[in-house]
Amino acid sequence: MRSKLPDSKLSIFSVMSKLAAEYGALNLSQGFPDFDTDPALIQLVTEAMQAGHNQYAPLAGNLRLREKIAALVLELRGKYYNPESEITLTVGASEALYVAITAFVHRDDEVIVLKPAYDTYEPTILVQGGVPVPVQLEAPYTSINWDAVAAAITPKTRMLIINNPHNPSGMIFQKADLERLEALVHGTDILILSDEVYEHIVFDNQQHQSVASVPGLAERSLITASFGKTFHTTGWKTGYCLAPKALMHEFRKVHQSTVFCVHHPTQVALATYLEEPGHYLNLSAFYQRKRDVFIEAIKDSRFQVTPSAGTYFQMLDYSKITDEPAPEFAERLTKENGLASIPVSVFNVNGQDDQLLRFCFAKEEETLLKAAAILNAI
Amino acid sequence: MRSKLPDSKLSIFSVMSKLAAEYGALNLSQGFPDFDTDPALIQLVTEAMQAGHNQYAPLAGNLRLREKIAALVLELRGKYYNPESEITLTVGASEALYVAITAFVHRDDEVIVLKPAYDTYEPTILVQGGVPVPVQLEAPYTSINWDAVAAAITPKTRMLIINNPHNPSGMIFQKADLERLEALVHGTDILILSDEVYEHIVFDNQQHQSVASVPGLAERSLITASFGKTFHTTGWKTGYCLAPKALMHEFRKVHQSTVFCVHHPTQVALATYLEEPGHYLNLSAFYQRKRDVFIEAIKDSRFQVTPSAGTYFQMLDYSKITDEPAPEFAERLTKENGLASIPVSVFNVNGQDDQLLRFCFAKEEETLLKAAAILNAI
Ligand SMILES: CSCCC(=O)C(=O)O
Ligand SMILES: CSCCC(=O)C(=O)O
Repeated sequence: MRSKLPDSKLSIFSVMSKLAAEYGALNLSQGFPDFDTDPALIQLVTEAMQAGHNQYAPLAGNLRLREKIAALVLELRGKYYNPESEITLTVGASEALYVAITAFVHRDDEVIVLKPAYDTYEPTILVQGGVPVPVQLEAPYTSINWDAVAAAITPKTRMLIINNPHNPSGMIFQKADLERLEALVHGTDILILSDEVYEHIVFDNQQHQSVASVPGLAERSLITASFGKTFHTTGWKTGYCLAPKALMHEFRKVHQSTVFCVHHPTQVALATYLEEPGHYLNLSAFYQRKRDVFIEAIKDSRFQVTPSAGTYFQMLDYSKITDEPAPEFAERLTKENGLASIPVSVFNVNGQDDQLLRFCFAKEEETLLKAAAILNAI
Repeated sequence: MRSKLPDSKLSIFSVMSKLAAEYGALNLSQGFPDFDTDPALIQLVTEAMQAGHNQYAPLAGNLRLREKIAALVLELRGKYYNPESEITLTVGASEALYVAITAFVHRDDEVIVLKPAYDTYEPTILVQGGVPVPVQLEAPYTSINWDAVAAAITPKTRMLIINNPHNPSGMIFQKADLERLEALVHGTDILILSDEVYEHIVFDNQQHQSVASVPGLAERSLITASFGKTFHTTGWKTGYCLAPKALMHEFRKVHQSTVFCVHHPTQVALATYLEEPGHYLNLSAFYQRKRDVFIEAIKDSRFQVTPSAGTYFQMLDYSKITDEPAPEFAERLTKENGLASIPVSVFNVNGQDDQLLRFCFAKEEETLLKAAAILNAI
């Protein structure tokens, strides 16, 4: 049997979460919060089910929810997306990413991917017969070498995927990054797929710089966003995509077949929940405190902290401890020390190993302190 | 911009449901039940959320739910699927269909599709660069011309898609159909994608004939199933795929990127709900009564009833009334008479028009009688 994805392995997130469970390790690998979901939101989902919102949602999503999203995006990013034609609810940002790539990447089209990169971008490009063109960033991935990106552009470049705030590094884009990007794509027909699922988690009083806020980028961008990351509900698989009408038209042609629509009662609940936009606004402070607790608690360890300016991830450099490759070290840390993380090398070109592990700090302080105690003892 | 799906239109289900809403028409077009979801099942979802099952599910789905599915399939179809490696929860049967086609159909591969066919099969084949090979059934589509199917097979045939019970006609497969199919594919490497979402809705004391129960077919089949159709929860987008391990391995490589996983609390709830398998068993009788109420109520109308042996759809032949094409007639019926249906022609080769409309009878009797009154007056 000829495989569509001969080199595709089980997702590292599944591998590590499974290993963590098997060895009873603290699981700071796969990125998900361990906080309670707001009971008010759960109550709203229950009410939506009881009110009978249990059949198909419209394929673009519940209209009231799309209107709420439009209002919030306008308020926060200064750009209006038409809820009728420019916003589509998706099965998490995962489906938004999958559909955006599928709708626009034709056979032999090149897609530039900044590495380290989230692990679904490249398989999705390959499924289309597209060609991933990876541009490797330099550890600890705190800035983008735009000259290298420029050098990767060819007449075949169809799409450029960015992720801001950046998983796994925690890097965030500065205004200058967007300006440089705009200059690079100006006059081309390159599309931008901007994965902004951590948009509400940005630290140290910095601001999220969305492609939505730059007209020369917004006109060619598909932006993916996630309620799971924002409301501690990654398992509810509800995200969305923003894009100009002509792009969204093609996006929906594919979305219509991948899933048709998204869990309906959840959408109805979110539409009401978003009436209080305050829900978004504390997230940066909330996670900054988590980050700070975690890095303060390991400051005397032999792990070195890299700068995390956003997301709920912290990378640690373990090169002072061992020269063991990251996958092996991460495995050993899970099995022998009871702490699961993600070896960052799996997201790099050819597994380039910068001896970094990624830890998810979206956890109760107690858990972070336990993890720190393990790291301190190594 | 070069479109991946230049000829793809807005799904007829969206078109007609929207028109129905606009004109305040009874909506018997898009297939969904209007019955209350079992409050016990809603309660279980609420409990799952309250118990904290709000983060990612395993990518193959909640294991307890997979075990329940395995037990039920074994009991009902006599075939054991390993929950670890041969069952995957999907975002409705939609995602299962999409992923099954994506995982196995390569560029230029031919896929045989029996027409009339559900409207996502062919776009999904086209997205892969595959070639849909439609085999048109003869109205009212109550039997399959296997000779025509045999004639459509070439060395490039990669997959054959069947749908049993069949939407829109209500046809169900007989044992002889499966035997003939088995003979056709024997010795080839043709895969079968068997869309069995209406498996629990089969009338007149007949039995659903699943490819799972025929070893020579099961070994090469991906079967898609839907909890939405079974538990009146089409908007919960929870279905699954059954396939032998080697096929499921490739299926999951794609599923990992399309959505990663399915709404988690719903899965936890279903795992408990399925402890009483009785939930399945009344469905045929329940819907048979609906069908009978509907056809009895229109027996004096000028619409002619076609045989519906399963699904929650009834086709009506309106050729005695007008020779208007089905799309126009369906539109007029919605706008002028207040009753929305689906023009079956849109599912046929080149829109072949057999002057049939499809009505969904998964509705309260009161609604069915109202619809009948409208039909009787025409
Ligand atoms: C879908 S599991 C992956 C979760 C995640 O976004 C991450 O850990 O990076
Ligand atoms: C996903 S909307 C289509 C519902 C359905 O299965 C049908 O009406 O045939």
